[in-house]
Amino acid sequence: MSIKVMTSQAEKAYTLLQSDAEKIRKLIEVQLENLTMPQCPLYEEVLDTRMFGLSREIDFAVRLGLVEEEQGKQILSELERRLADLHDLTVQR
Amino acid sequence: MSIKVMTSQAEKAYTLLQSDAEKIRKLIEVQLENLTMPQCPLYEEVLDTRMFGLSREIDFAVRLGLVEEEQGKQILSELERRLADLHDLTVQR
Repeated sequence: MSIKVMTSQAEKAYTLLQSDAEKIRKLIEVQLENLTMPQCPLYEEVLDTRMFGLSREIDFAVRLGLVEEEQGKQILSELERRLADLHDLTVQR
Repeated sequence: MSIKVMTSQAEKAYTLLQSDAEKIRKLIEVQLENLTMPQCPLYEEVLDTRMFGLSREIDFAVRLGLVEEEQGKQILSELERRLADLHDLTVQR
């Protein structure tokens, strides 16, 4: 497959993964901003489910050779750090 | 993107989705074959999680333009039929 074509497909895949990650990031930010409000118990489950879904997409993109494993790991670990922050702040309250 | 290249990437994506679906199908078959044994309560949750993961992969492949939405729906609905069979047989026992 020509490099040029692979890159456009790979770029599209990476951009899609980043935008999916961004949606989860926004969910986390909303929760962080509303820490003073009573926590919706399901929130962590919603985030866990979204994270699992994103991890399946990343794994699929890596197996397709569209995204490097390292790139995928970075997307997930960045979100996991934010989730950990959210969890710590929630527990401290 | 040249048709030829798209097809090879699309074929690879579709083949990956089918092999992931096959893994779930095997899980269902094992459960069907062992219906006489006490049911592992987590089994349905494992299958649900796997189905959710596969649906995220399919959605990702469709958004990437690698797989037709209809193709994705067929993969899922075939598995859902088997899951329904499994559920019916489990409930009848």
